[in-house]
Amino acid sequence: MTRLAAIDWGTSSLRGALLDANGKVLEERSDARGILKVPEGGFPAVLESLFGDWLRIEGTRCLISGMAGSKQGWVEAPYCACPAGRVEVGRKIIRIDTIPGVHIAIVPGLSDEHDGVPDVMRGEEVQIFGAMSLTGLSEGLFVLPGTHNKWATVKNGRVAGFRTCMTGEFYALLSQHSILARTLDAAAPLDEAAFLQGVTQSGNGQGLLHNAFGARTLALFERMPRQELSSYLSGVLIGEELRTQSLHAVGEVVLIGSPALTERYALALRATGVATRTLGSEATWAGLYALSGFAVADNGNTIEP
Amino acid sequence: MTRLAAIDWGTSSLRGALLDANGKVLEERSDARGILKVPEGGFPAVLESLFGDWLRIEGTRCLISGMAGSKQGWVEAPYCACPAGRVEVGRKIIRIDTIPGVHIAIVPGLSDEHDGVPDVMRGEEVQIFGAMSLTGLSEGLFVLPGTHNKWATVKNGRVAGFRTCMTGEFYALLSQHSILARTLDAAAPLDEAAFLQGVTQSGNGQGLLHNAFGARTLALFERMPRQELSSYLSGVLIGEELRTQSLHAVGEVVLIGSPALTERYALALRATGVATRTLGSEATWAGLYALSGFAVADNGNTIEP
Repeated sequence: MTRLAAIDWGTSSLRGALLDANGKVLEERSDARGILKVPEGGFPAVLESLFGDWLRIEGTRCLISGMAGSKQGWVEAPYCACPAGRVEVGRKIIRIDTIPGVHIAIVPGLSDEHDGVPDVMRGEEVQIFGAMSLTGLSEGLFVLPGTHNKWATVKNGRVAGFRTCMTGEFYALLSQHSILARTLDAAAPLDEAAFLQGVTQSGNGQGLLHNAFGARTLALFERMPRQELSSYLSGVLIGEELRTQSLHAVGEVVLIGSPALTERYALALRATGVATRTLGSEATWAGLYALSGFAVADNGNTIEP
Repeated sequence: MTRLAAIDWGTSSLRGALLDANGKVLEERSDARGILKVPEGGFPAVLESLFGDWLRIEGTRCLISGMAGSKQGWVEAPYCACPAGRVEVGRKIIRIDTIPGVHIAIVPGLSDEHDGVPDVMRGEEVQIFGAMSLTGLSEGLFVLPGTHNKWATVKNGRVAGFRTCMTGEFYALLSQHSILARTLDAAAPLDEAAFLQGVTQSGNGQGLLHNAFGARTLALFERMPRQELSSYLSGVLIGEELRTQSLHAVGEVVLIGSPALTERYALALRATGVATRTLGSEATWAGLYALSGFAVADNGNTIEP
């Protein structure tokens, strides 16, 4: 392999990076054509239009993670059950032969189960492997904030288990579609004090269903400026999320995600005495690079590095 | 007073009843013109069009509760702070002289405050007074499920305090606008077993932000039929709401609301060992009747019964 076209193809957008044989990022691109915007059978054409020049470089492989491997995506890559590390995931990578002469493969997501209820991730497992590779950690709590946040416990270099929290989607629903939207400015910048006030409020034992209403009444009685309400609501939600995690024995959390989100989690975690270190898109590229050795050979067999 | 036109004018709809001098309901009407659908200055015309024949009966008074008394309503009737009973609320009833010759007054809502965060209700206080009048109770926990549920503690015949839970609105947001909407049938009838499974799930200590996602993954892995998912989600939400209440010393809860909602709360409460008794719209009419003695006289003074 001389080059790796590393692609994280999500629900609402996609990102790609061209890596050299040592995993160094040569170029990055992103686009709004997440899987929900790709017409049926349209994946090869979108890939070609966005990354065709990369794919035509001699010896380039293309490895895709994220929702492109879901039922609604390009080709379904069945979930790999936890505990799962690079090896288990690598063995379930699926080869796609849709574009002649181009070696394309797709990474499966992970599944877990608690009390008879399944849980899933697609794409975050790659970020976790990348973070492990970049930090050298083989144990720890890895948190990936987004629409559906993942809290993953890593042991012996494998994802031992994980849970999803719909915090990002709850924030979007409440700030855009609920009664709170009438008085709250969802586009206002983060106000740290209001955010931490929300985090504190979430610890009052009254639960999210009650505490979210505070963002309405604080506006109604003009107790908090309009510009601060979205930060307060964000704090109530993230505080609620942290409340349900077992953080008492955790010294440090590895945060992986966009700066705007990881900043909030770092603030809230620091307020509860937990240290953080933060990674961004470099974790995705490092994870796809780490898995690229497993890419399926032309004869269909998995090649382990 | 020979007749009372009792009106509960909410955000998205309104209901009215004509009561005789003894509080007996002679007729009921409802309409979709909640306060958000009334054009500016249009309240007298809507009232007239819906209840004009009642208002023209000699000696009829009209008493209005609900969001018609809010800032966005007909005339703002400032909140009455808890603890508050019939007397305190009665003294803050506001006379409206918009329609000549018709005695119209508007009931204020209640406010409360916890840890510097206010809470409010408008209309539910009337239902609580009505329920007290109908049951003879002057102590107890009164629960009013709806878009924004109210949990009110009554002591010595007054509302000592209350809290709002946005459970109804969360259910609407999640079942109609979230990723769960893709696999869930919000119109499916209640499935008691799936509902109680959701209630049980909510007690796992993982919080609503995680447990709501179960309604997605149970569908994804075909572990629960599509028809049962909305009941499961409803159980997760109502279970979460109950989890945050102090129910250990409560023998019985008085539920006030629509049969479709109170049925679910009765089921969930019974599952936790709490008995319930249920009231519907009769509580509204009894409450407005109980307050009608306080209706403001023509000279503007409150007349206490």
